Amino acid sequence: MRILIIGASGTIGRAIVSALTGRHDLVLASKDEAPEQVDISDPASIRALYARVGRVDAVVSAAGQAAFKPLADLTDADFSLSLNNKLMGQVNLVRFGIASVADGGSFTLTAGLMAREPARNAAAVSLVNAGLEGFGRSAALELPRGQRINVVSPPSLSETLRARGQDPGAGLPAAAVARAYVASVEGKQTGTVLDPRA
Amino acid sequence: MRILIIGASGTIGRAIVSALTGRHDLVLASKDEAPEQVDISDPASIRALYARVGRVDAVVSAAGQAAFKPLADLTDADFSLSLNNKLMGQVNLVRFGIASVADGGSFTLTAGLMAREPARNAAAVSLVNAGLEGFGRSAALELPRGQRINVVSPPSLSETLRARGQDPGAGLPAAAVARAYVASVEGKQTGTVLDPRA
Repeated sequence: MRILIIGASGTIGRAIVSALTGRHDLVLASKDEAPEQVDISDPASIRALYARVGRVDAVVSAAGQAAFKPLADLTDADFSLSLNNKLMGQVNLVRFGIASVADGGSFTLTAGLMAREPARNAAAVSLVNAGLEGFGRSAALELPRGQRINVVSPPSLSETLRARGQDPGAGLPAAAVARAYVASVEGKQTGTVLDPRA
Repeated sequence: MRILIIGASGTIGRAIVSALTGRHDLVLASKDEAPEQVDISDPASIRALYARVGRVDAVVSAAGQAAFKPLADLTDADFSLSLNNKLMGQVNLVRFGIASVADGGSFTLTAGLMAREPARNAAAVSLVNAGLEGFGRSAALELPRGQRINVVSPPSLSETLRARGQDPGAGLPAAAVARAYVASVEGKQTGTVLDPRA
């Protein structure tokens, strides 16, 4: 398969690339550290990416920023960033990518565990992640030509926890999280939320 | 209790008013059919509402628009409307209302069943409703002074289905839905999603 990976330079993105390399033809994109550059918060940048890349069999997104901070400190700008970047950025990867994805191809987006497991400082993140899960479930019913969509909702990464001096065992290694993306791309399911811990 | 009801003129709003009248002091607000007018898509309008109304014990929102239409027909403007109105409008009722709500007071927002039950034409609606549920779960952990927040996710209303010539038995009457709001306002729970069918 020819697979477009957005967010390819991040911790999850690199693990997805490792997991898919060899079996598939990968097109790597990120904001500024991959051969194809895209700012998912900018619809024109997404449209330009698809115009350059052409037909693909799968689109995998491990990209998107959302504001993680106390409810009392979340500003209008924090909500705008979260909605425009991680939420609508990934929704727009689907909307603007449908014409570029082959019959039976797939979209795999990234939400996060806080969609369903609440946490302090996560009011905006939980909103965004839950919104992505809801979008994926309903969009799956309407994608044309047998296209599929799934949403991966990873827990904290062991790598991130270790870098913060926290217990890496409280999360999952990126390589384990990447297996959920591989399952979405290579499997047949659609409209599902994949929990890499399951 | 002194209770501010936003969306008081809608089908659910009127049923909530009926259910709470007599036991509580109600302040009714809607876009243009109640004593207090507010456009929840406009942060300044929400701030002005709270400045006029003063201290309340509970805020109930049964307001908000989101675009229900085929995925292929959803425009950038449809997503903006849905995010700015039903989603951020209700999030902002919480953010800007915290200072006006009494110790131990509550917020009750309206999402909808399509948050978790996918449907055709509901990609934007499911996004918004799921996002509200996610926001409510995490925001509950950080509200100050014992304040609570719950999200009601109603199914289709029998009244709406009947008006469309569909089977009213496939939904719930607004009066039954209103009981979930009463439970949120008068109960002790926080961070919950209330399904009026349960």
